[in-house]
Amino acid sequence: MNKFLWQIRVYYEDTDSGGVVYHSIYLNFMERARTEWLRSLGFEQDELIQKHDVVFAVRNLAIEYHLPARFNDSLVVSTEVVGVKQASLLFNQTITNAVTSEVLCSGSVRVASLSAQRFKPSAIPVGLREIIIKGN
Amino acid sequence: MNKFLWQIRVYYEDTDSGGVVYHSIYLNFMERARTEWLRSLGFEQDELIQKHDVVFAVRNLAIEYHLPARFNDSLVVSTEVVGVKQASLLFNQTITNAVTSEVLCSGSVRVASLSAQRFKPSAIPVGLREIIIKGN
Amino acid sequence: MNKFLWQIRVYYEDTDSGGVVYHSIYLNFMERARTEWLRSLGFEQDELIQKHDVVFAVRNLAIEYHLPARFNDSLVVSTEVVGVKQASLLFNQTITNAVTSEVLCSGSVRVASLSAQRFKPSAIPVGLREIIIKGN
Amino acid sequence: MNKFLWQIRVYYEDTDSGGVVYHSIYLNFMERARTEWLRSLGFEQDELIQKHDVVFAVRNLAIEYHLPARFNDSLVVSTEVVGVKQASLLFNQTITNAVTSEVLCSGSVRVASLSAQRFKPSAIPVGLREIIIKGN
Repeated sequence: MNKFLWQIRVYYEDTDSGGVVYHSIYLNFMERARTEWLRSLGFEQDELIQKHDVVFAVRNLAIEYHLPARFNDSLVVSTEVVGVKQASLLFNQTITNAVTSEVLCSGSVRVASLSAQRFKPSAIPVGLREIIIKGN
Repeated sequence: MNKFLWQIRVYYEDTDSGGVVYHSIYLNFMERARTEWLRSLGFEQDELIQKHDVVFAVRNLAIEYHLPARFNDSLVVSTEVVGVKQASLLFNQTITNAVTSEVLCSGSVRVASLSAQRFKPSAIPVGLREIIIKGN
Repeated sequence: MNKFLWQIRVYYEDTDSGGVVYHSIYLNFMERARTEWLRSLGFEQDELIQKHDVVFAVRNLAIEYHLPARFNDSLVVSTEVVGVKQASLLFNQTITNAVTSEVLCSGSVRVASLSAQRFKPSAIPVGLREIIIKGN
Repeated sequence: MNKFLWQIRVYYEDTDSGGVVYHSIYLNFMERARTEWLRSLGFEQDELIQKHDVVFAVRNLAIEYHLPARFNDSLVVSTEVVGVKQASLLFNQTITNAVTSEVLCSGSVRVASLSAQRFKPSAIPVGLREIIIKGN
């Protein structure tokens, strides 16, 4: 299985007054990584909307928070496709401290492929689906 | 001149690891207050888009940060229209600690009326413009 | 079982270019509601930090996204304690459209009680724990 | 005068339902760029806090919004120091579309040097101040 790695820096905007990254921000980091994974396969999401009427939306997720990330930390988000259906993808993702290699946060995220117009389930474009399956 | 007051609570999501509200979040608070001011005049922004093809967008702003707001603080945002043009509104806004009455943040924000379709300047709907002018 | 209800308005800041509330923002809404639930029991989190050295942090969560919330929607967040341990609480939370009563998002969130100083598990203050158990 | 350039990608989290980057997010982008500029000079802000008890906080700002950034855009933030005082720095910053070179947003930001402990003005550490002045 291929894991796509994407590096992210923690800025002030990501932290809260507890001194750590705010818990919902890890979801943003995971989505940035999924976007960059898609780009690494040659697919831009704005083109998927315009050419294929396809938009991806999170359907469900389960996250474990192990250790906090802090201001200025350098993080690595790992993204792995563990399931491909007609109109959804299942990802396993982890966020690791790039210096200590400690796993800070891990989880699974199911992303649905929707018609951008109707916001209803819509098959993943064939070309993309084939590349994802090959990539694994 | 009428000042519209809107109360906002500071949650963890609004703070940063400096222990205070992150500086860009005050702009969000000011926009929430402008939205509620518009609602208090009887105008819903989703209806303005659908019925009048009008969306408001910030054109420029100048903000002074006086004192920090902190987690759990109760704030009051004051909103006052100080200028009405064909396709823009000028607001003075301040954010005050609801308990101590200290002014934490103050500034002026110019908001342009745009066509939601074309994202180009478009006159403020007459009915709304009249109510704003009367309201002052 | 008591459910605590808290109303939240969707502002522009909460939405994304898909036209809907961004998926991580629902976690913020749920935390706002847990904060207000705690306040409704007579406990302020800044006092819990200062007097009891206790801070709450999300330990894990599982969320299902059913239907999108949109700009200007009025939402109701329901919060219910379904488990009380020595140093953690388990919540079931749902987010409902206040007008249509459709459930948009639901999930469970485990929150750990930590020492604010050491960021390690620390028993929930007895007074608070008793009130939570009675409240259920 | 040296201008420090920093590239930023627009993700869904940055956009709003108007289809464009939410206006307060440009302030986040500008702060990310100031953080990276400081890093490029050899200064990490977490070390400045720990070793020098110094934290930077925005004192005031004035921003012009010229053209919207959109989902998936690649942006370049330019950062230039245009004033150095005992306990504050004045920056001019612009945000440009990396592909079209259109200036989307420009402004000036005054950042105060504060004691991290007391949150009161505190001189910029001499070593940093000299490097900033030389750098210009």
